[in-house]
Amino acid sequence: MLHLTAEDQARSWLTRLSVALGAGKAPAVAELFDTNGIWRDLLCFTWSIATFEGRAEIEAMLANCLHRAAPRHLTLEPGTARDTEGLVEAWFTLETSQLRARGHLRLREGRCQTLFTTARAIIGHEERAGRRRERGAPPGPARHAETWTERRRRQAEALGRSEQPYCLIIGGSQGGLALAARLRRLDVPTLVIDRLARPGDAWRRRYRSLCLHDPIWANHLPYLPFPDHWPVYIPKDRMADWLDAYAGLMDIDFQGGTVARRARFDEARQGWSVEVEREGVATTLHPRQLVIATGLSGAPAIPRFPGAETFRGVQCHSSAFEGGAGHAGRRAVVIGSNNSAHDICAELWEQGASVTMVQRSSTLVVRAETLFREITSRLFSEDALAAGIGTEQADDIAASRPFAMLTELHRGLYRRIREVDAEFYDSLARAGFMLDFGEDETGLSLKYLRRASGYYIDVGASGLIARGEVALRSGVEVARLRPEGVELSDGTLLPADLIVHATGYQPMESVIAELISPEVAARVGPVWGLGSGTRRDPGPWVGELRNMWKPTRQPGLWLQAGNLQQVRTYSRILALQIQARMLGLPTPVHDPKALG
Amino acid sequence: MLHLTAEDQARSWLTRLSVALGAGKAPAVAELFDTNGIWRDLLCFTWSIATFEGRAEIEAMLANCLHRAAPRHLTLEPGTARDTEGLVEAWFTLETSQLRARGHLRLREGRCQTLFTTARAIIGHEERAGRRRERGAPPGPARHAETWTERRRRQAEALGRSEQPYCLIIGGSQGGLALAARLRRLDVPTLVIDRLARPGDAWRRRYRSLCLHDPIWANHLPYLPFPDHWPVYIPKDRMADWLDAYAGLMDIDFQGGTVARRARFDEARQGWSVEVEREGVATTLHPRQLVIATGLSGAPAIPRFPGAETFRGVQCHSSAFEGGAGHAGRRAVVIGSNNSAHDICAELWEQGASVTMVQRSSTLVVRAETLFREITSRLFSEDALAAGIGTEQADDIAASRPFAMLTELHRGLYRRIREVDAEFYDSLARAGFMLDFGEDETGLSLKYLRRASGYYIDVGASGLIARGEVALRSGVEVARLRPEGVELSDGTLLPADLIVHATGYQPMESVIAELISPEVAARVGPVWGLGSGTRRDPGPWVGELRNMWKPTRQPGLWLQAGNLQQVRTYSRILALQIQARMLGLPTPVHDPKALG
Repeated sequence: MLHLTAEDQARSWLTRLSVALGAGKAPAVAELFDTNGIWRDLLCFTWSIATFEGRAEIEAMLANCLHRAAPRHLTLEPGTARDTEGLVEAWFTLETSQLRARGHLRLREGRCQTLFTTARAIIGHEERAGRRRERGAPPGPARHAETWTERRRRQAEALGRSEQPYCLIIGGSQGGLALAARLRRLDVPTLVIDRLARPGDAWRRRYRSLCLHDPIWANHLPYLPFPDHWPVYIPKDRMADWLDAYAGLMDIDFQGGTVARRARFDEARQGWSVEVEREGVATTLHPRQLVIATGLSGAPAIPRFPGAETFRGVQCHSSAFEGGAGHAGRRAVVIGSNNSAHDICAELWEQGASVTMVQRSSTLVVRAETLFREITSRLFSEDALAAGIGTEQADDIAASRPFAMLTELHRGLYRRIREVDAEFYDSLARAGFMLDFGEDETGLSLKYLRRASGYYIDVGASGLIARGEVALRSGVEVARLRPEGVELSDGTLLPADLIVHATGYQPMESVIAELISPEVAARVGPVWGLGSGTRRDPGPWVGELRNMWKPTRQPGLWLQAGNLQQVRTYSRILALQIQARMLGLPTPVHDPKALG
Repeated sequence: MLHLTAEDQARSWLTRLSVALGAGKAPAVAELFDTNGIWRDLLCFTWSIATFEGRAEIEAMLANCLHRAAPRHLTLEPGTARDTEGLVEAWFTLETSQLRARGHLRLREGRCQTLFTTARAIIGHEERAGRRRERGAPPGPARHAETWTERRRRQAEALGRSEQPYCLIIGGSQGGLALAARLRRLDVPTLVIDRLARPGDAWRRRYRSLCLHDPIWANHLPYLPFPDHWPVYIPKDRMADWLDAYAGLMDIDFQGGTVARRARFDEARQGWSVEVEREGVATTLHPRQLVIATGLSGAPAIPRFPGAETFRGVQCHSSAFEGGAGHAGRRAVVIGSNNSAHDICAELWEQGASVTMVQRSSTLVVRAETLFREITSRLFSEDALAAGIGTEQADDIAASRPFAMLTELHRGLYRRIREVDAEFYDSLARAGFMLDFGEDETGLSLKYLRRASGYYIDVGASGLIARGEVALRSGVEVARLRPEGVELSDGTLLPADLIVHATGYQPMESVIAELISPEVAARVGPVWGLGSGTRRDPGPWVGELRNMWKPTRQPGLWLQAGNLQQVRTYSRILALQIQARMLGLPTPVHDPKALG
């Protein structure tokens, strides 16, 4: 075989792809893939977020979607082709009949291993930014002309009162705001409501020592990056202030102190009636699209321990724990062993409490420093920036990896992590801490994607446990609460002045059941998880996060959640779907694994 | 002569410069310049902002400064060399014994026409940003540890109370904030005070229709650019909100409602005593460095018209004019014909008032659209961004042009502008409007740099005047005010219900006289202006803006003002000078034209 550069190989394959697509020949396109090749598509072909694994699935998708998508102008992005030990990667741009898009390919020996196509904008309806921004000042004096500020104020006051929003977002923390920022630039009238007064209040009310667990480079919201002097791990009050400012600076219509009580979809109108209570006054909103953005979790999950009502001290769920102040010298029991449990144990220890953690099942622990060095920093760090990987490119790289590909990748990464931190893990094991690395040893990211629980990113609490400064009882259950403390399943009693139930949350579908109806929740089905067949993520395999950022079985209902990196990436995809519907564009959804 | 690329020519000259500098040979360096060659230096060699014109001045500067500066590592920035009809330009980096720096050269036929050297950072004391940012989260749990937020809050509360700021900035609008943002990253304890409650209040209180006159691309503050969906001409309330948010997000210690009454420099301590009144309570601050950042202007200038006290209607200075609302059907006279006068005429006309402008002397008018298309957009626009000219590069390009070079450049630009807008200018002349283009036809920028007054950037009021919708009386003076209106020097009476004195402001030196003393104001001398020998800018020629952003004849006193582009560019230079003094570095100032 002649020696071809990565660029040659990528261009050659892309040309063949263009020809096969242009000829409308699904089988010919499928032939260009490895037999196990994977195509991940965000909207371009499917108007959904869907992954097709193997030639048969790819061919079936194209048979359905190729004609309408009519892809064209597939053009290699100059300078992006790379060859890493025979794996050729490159970025390209394309258009469909409706969308501007970007793609990524991974080739080995001339066959495609993975193809990724992602929408960027609806042609002719691009964001109002850059060259398409408004002028601000009027073109000249005019009698009784409204200023930009007056118009903005009038519109904000009308929305949800005399004017109905096209889109209502329930939940105005990072998820809701990121989506709203995108929708505003797409001219989609959007109202964000939140039960708290200000966008940052959800962060503001958490315990004092809380910092974001991901480093700053991963946490930017769309369009307005954090200033580059901000600390690596953003303290929660900083984040709260940022969200407050962000809502204003991004012209988001946010109404705080507003609780959504009940939502009903009117089939005839194809729209929603949402009963809300705004500072005590009931009113009904009529959006066409409804987004739930109240976070990955539903209501706090508090196990009904027998005798809970007899406990004489203070007890609360982790979500209501405001800090350790005032607990010096007192005995605290924290039930649970995931992130919140660890953070709260550390906080109570810092304040001088005598703390015991009750670990009921094994936990995946990874040191924040190690996680950053071995994994996160490859896309999100000063090093990544220096290598030309800005936030948007990092997001695209992350999205270009089909979930099926992550299992092997992360198993390797965690083999290494267990080696480099062997001493750390030994010290935890010696303290009796029950460790795991996921059912199939694939580590944190997969556990997060499958069930979003069961782990701790260590910022120091593990050391307290290893050294016995935070006491640990593991492999036991809570038998009952007693007036003086917690009785464990082995019969021992942990005397306590304070019990914190760091016992997690209801799943997201509980929010749908509560707000809309159990029937709609059942129709939509499980939210989050890949269908991996591991605990709390039952099969069948769907290859994407279920119901996230894409059409659900309930028309007009959308879910927006995830960590900041996901919220940033997929808010664009979700915004485009909502915009397309407002514009009345055809959006035929092809997503057989999700929607059957 | 062999054909050499621009890059070859630039590299060859830079090598010759390196050798001559390295050999410490001032005459040899001077020989590399055209006989009329110009060297503009920001701190690198002079610890001032100074321009040296012709070989003799350059040689004299080097004789003084070369040995200590010890420049090294002059390295062409790849891909920056350009050849435009024989004019070769390129960017390079260098270091001195103290500073990281950047340079720019313009060559013709192998000789240097202009050289520009500008400081970027003090070596070993770079900004706390990017790789040098803080961690935020503590390295691990610690008893009674302060969180990042608690520390920040404690420091902010202490500053100006139990702790003295190293630097006090009087004036917390864009000028003060831009400088404070830079000083914070340089770890210089800085307090910003302002008589108004919030940073944005100065903008917020202006008349309702006011928008920034420069387009958004020129107006970014350091580090945190405006979101790219913001309008081209930022409405004043938008700008106000931005400044409020900026102060918080950039961690600036801002104390509003605080008036500086009196400042005194203590020679023995080499520091200041500044009496301030904070919400009615008097206190004294003791900064080492004092920055006046209250704007280009001093107090409002209101001519003492005879009979002013007899006028029965409402009169105010333009700075106190809050809007045209309530003046419908009433007769308004606006005295003055510069920016504010025009804006206020338009605003009153919009609200239905019957308006007359009194033009006492000629005015330079240029249409905003034309100014943007022909001049500003070359550095600040979406086109410039698309050509790779980001904000920082645009600022460097602008700064690389010695003021002496601007005269010829702008004369040409305005010849063209008068041609393309001939019809517009004719219509104004027909209405009796007295036009000028600067004494030497050099247009707006030069008039701004020389006297910062005497012009209007037309956003529509000129059309009102040309069409007679705003009445004009030109070439007359105000003889006196009468109970019923304004009596002009030709004896006519303009009946009025409202008189707005758009008569400008006292010069900046009046602020020094008021705050410190007339003696210090006299010692410092005129502020702003180049010494061009034109009206309001008497010679001798100094080639730089007098006393701006650089050492004055009063130790520890600094002036920070200008439009947003200047404020952004020169806040870096000023911040480095203050930082160097805090660090106790030697900062020998060489600025013969300014300091004699």
